[in-house]
Amino acid sequence: MKSKTVAELLSQDITVNDVTLQDVTIQGWVRTFRANRFIALNDGSTINNIQCVVDFENFDDALLKRITTGAAIKVNGELVESQGKGQSVELVVKTLEVLGDSDPETYPIQPKKHSFQFLRENAHLRTRTNTFGAVMRLRSSLSFAIHKYFNENGFFYMHTPIITGSDAEGAGEMFRVSSLDQKNPPLTEDGNIDYKEDFFGKETNLTVSGQLEAETYAMSLGKVYTFGPTFRAENSNTSRHLAEFWMIEPEVAFMDLAGNMDLAEDFLKYVLSYVLENNKEDLEFLDKRLLDEEKTKPQAERSAMGLIEKIKFVVDNNFKRVSYTEAIDILKNSKPNKKKKFNYIIEEWGADLQSEHERFLVEKHFKCPVILFDYPANIKAFYMRLNEDGKTVRAMDILFPGIGEMVGGSQREERLDVLKEKMKALDISEEELWWYLDLRKYGTAVHSGFGLGFERLVMFATGMSNIRDVIPYPRTPQNADF
Amino acid sequence: MKSKTVAELLSQDITVNDVTLQDVTIQGWVRTFRANRFIALNDGSTINNIQCVVDFENFDDALLKRITTGAAIKVNGELVESQGKGQSVELVVKTLEVLGDSDPETYPIQPKKHSFQFLRENAHLRTRTNTFGAVMRLRSSLSFAIHKYFNENGFFYMHTPIITGSDAEGAGEMFRVSSLDQKNPPLTEDGNIDYKEDFFGKETNLTVSGQLEAETYAMSLGKVYTFGPTFRAENSNTSRHLAEFWMIEPEVAFMDLAGNMDLAEDFLKYVLSYVLENNKEDLEFLDKRLLDEEKTKPQAERSAMGLIEKIKFVVDNNFKRVSYTEAIDILKNSKPNKKKKFNYIIEEWGADLQSEHERFLVEKHFKCPVILFDYPANIKAFYMRLNEDGKTVRAMDILFPGIGEMVGGSQREERLDVLKEKMKALDISEEELWWYLDLRKYGTAVHSGFGLGFERLVMFATGMSNIRDVIPYPRTPQNADF
Repeated sequence: MKSKTVAELLSQDITVNDVTLQDVTIQGWVRTFRANRFIALNDGSTINNIQCVVDFENFDDALLKRITTGAAIKVNGELVESQGKGQSVELVVKTLEVLGDSDPETYPIQPKKHSFQFLRENAHLRTRTNTFGAVMRLRSSLSFAIHKYFNENGFFYMHTPIITGSDAEGAGEMFRVSSLDQKNPPLTEDGNIDYKEDFFGKETNLTVSGQLEAETYAMSLGKVYTFGPTFRAENSNTSRHLAEFWMIEPEVAFMDLAGNMDLAEDFLKYVLSYVLENNKEDLEFLDKRLLDEEKTKPQAERSAMGLIEKIKFVVDNNFKRVSYTEAIDILKNSKPNKKKKFNYIIEEWGADLQSEHERFLVEKHFKCPVILFDYPANIKAFYMRLNEDGKTVRAMDILFPGIGEMVGGSQREERLDVLKEKMKALDISEEELWWYLDLRKYGTAVHSGFGLGFERLVMFATGMSNIRDVIPYPRTPQNADF
Repeated sequence: MKSKTVAELLSQDITVNDVTLQDVTIQGWVRTFRANRFIALNDGSTINNIQCVVDFENFDDALLKRITTGAAIKVNGELVESQGKGQSVELVVKTLEVLGDSDPETYPIQPKKHSFQFLRENAHLRTRTNTFGAVMRLRSSLSFAIHKYFNENGFFYMHTPIITGSDAEGAGEMFRVSSLDQKNPPLTEDGNIDYKEDFFGKETNLTVSGQLEAETYAMSLGKVYTFGPTFRAENSNTSRHLAEFWMIEPEVAFMDLAGNMDLAEDFLKYVLSYVLENNKEDLEFLDKRLLDEEKTKPQAERSAMGLIEKIKFVVDNNFKRVSYTEAIDILKNSKPNKKKKFNYIIEEWGADLQSEHERFLVEKHFKCPVILFDYPANIKAFYMRLNEDGKTVRAMDILFPGIGEMVGGSQREERLDVLKEKMKALDISEEELWWYLDLRKYGTAVHSGFGLGFERLVMFATGMSNIRDVIPYPRTPQNADF
């Protein structure tokens, strides 16, 4: 009499003659208890509940009173074809046990709509709601799809270091990691912190990217990827920034920028197809949720497409590849630029694109995902491959509707002399990156990679608009709860 | 004329009549160049090299001189049945291009045996050796097997926070995470560090475990697991400790300690079977490597089993389940205890087991993996389920030959009053863990989980004896290089 999950029971073919269906045990949490008769039971395995039908005449009133929202119960009974609407099977309860009560007076998750802010404050319980159950199952599914894609395509997964002694990547402000006494740190003779006394014998920070280390493995194992946490100590209290987020960074030897674009597009389509196929019910729920949310907005601000429609659109259409130079032309001649509706007016080649420009290109002009490439060298990172024109680099950004930048990548500078020159110009220490330079000294080759902020992908696939709602326990300025 | 990987070429069926085999392009790094004729080329996709046969009369001498160990080259030619021993196919080279030279005078990775210590200092290049290529491919494969197992068994992957405001877990010393000015930190009126001014508005650390957060998701989604980095700021400079390591922590609602043992055993057997099946060549290489290493040891210290044999033994045999109380009896009456050969003599029930005792049980007494359970409450963590005897808890450790503790887990205390009492006795703040206590207030249920140090598993599966050699860039006291 092994317990089954709700997902297993709901997919049970009731028409087969199976005696075990007469003796089914299930454990879960009560969502609702209606008419002293119908328990909607959920165990997290699926968004759907199993209806458990209680004949109240056979049970103690005191016991039935304890069947409240959030209570954990164990029921045994017979699985039968459902008499009611909305489900194919239901469980006719023979025995019922309350494992853990849930006081309806104080239980925070009532069977009603809660604000997302309230649920963030109760993030330890929010996956007991339909919305967050669906979001986190999708997050899990996307994670698996990512590993599956790379595994099937000959990539090796590598864990790049979280604590780093290097601050050369320069992607943003870093968190310091230390085990020194913060109140009375050891000092050197000239009054500075004596990091020699710290755990690692030098100043260390939390990583902002695993790319440089991933390059070392690409230049030996060929195709690798990372999937791990990265950090930014930036005081950005927005709905799109986290201090701690997960990033996927593939890196491939002998692959140029065109190959990089192909890889990123193929990868994104694969993982999104995967959830379309494997998370149908969660997506249908979130699709409807988004539709309801959109209805509260003024007509003009509503999204033209539903959630599933939007995902399918990305899967089914080619991403538009546009050079930075072309994009600047389009933007310069665009209505919002001419009418000075942009906060940052595009005046000349070389301007850094703001999110308003990216969204214009994706949402108004091309109306599909866009890959921008060949950016001006001076607005991009030191390691990007300089083009023969001497002023652009083989960088690419993939822009998604509603999200903006989903992927940032580049072909890497493989020429030792060019790389050294660039580092010198930017005052990046050769001594610190000796190992990175070694890759160009010994058997250098064209190679490329990209970074994808995982939470951005989860936002896109779930239709959630606040990044705090797509990671279990968000870390943001002034918040490291749970 | 798309490039192929060495792995693809080597598994090519040469007997089929395939014109594309006459025009094969491959890129990789030179391992050796023998007799001015045979290039052993590797691209990381497999431990095996493809033999590229050069007719030196057709190529410039200057070009051939540049084919040195570590150089990146691109060759085009015809794939034919090999004339030589040791490989089934070889590439008859038509064109050859050197992409990146490698100066044989300075290239650190010479075609000879290097010490592991030397290779740690050149960790950015060590995956260019057979041993580290094999180890890291196996690490990747084990990672995938872990995700695959849990996905197939209805678990959801969750990312628990890395930066934590809680220090209640108590598993060890923590690293502080801060963005305060370390030299002149803001102080409160009474002269302490003013953490309100810090990024998160309070003191934060790097996580030592995701278990408590995983429990919150198990109590809503049913079956979950984590796979992420964890940290210990402990000054342990041994071959078995890292300051940063990866941990897998499944957590399951409605599962008791017996179910937990079943899960852990099934899981370990699955992931080890996966690599036996999918990493045959890497394992064969490492098996031979270990054998060679063992030969340098005195007969008495040699392992009785080879690497593959040991893995198969674990996969094929039941783990022996032994209560702590039984284990103490066995140890008390053991030869090394009576002859005072143990450093810590076992005198009575309640003693904490040392690694020498664990190894005796596994390697000498039972000669198989052992699951010890029902430990004394006072040597285990606060969250473990107290047994009815009032003195033991439903804890389990899985001990592996040569490794010691591979898994540590328990059924969790689900009773609010018992948990509160335990926390009080240990001075753990209820206020800080309010959310953890909520799980026992609202719909509590039996639940269990375990933690597995990923690097211990990689050590077991690769036969490597130093934990620094199974993670790309190890973090240890005084070392955060790369």
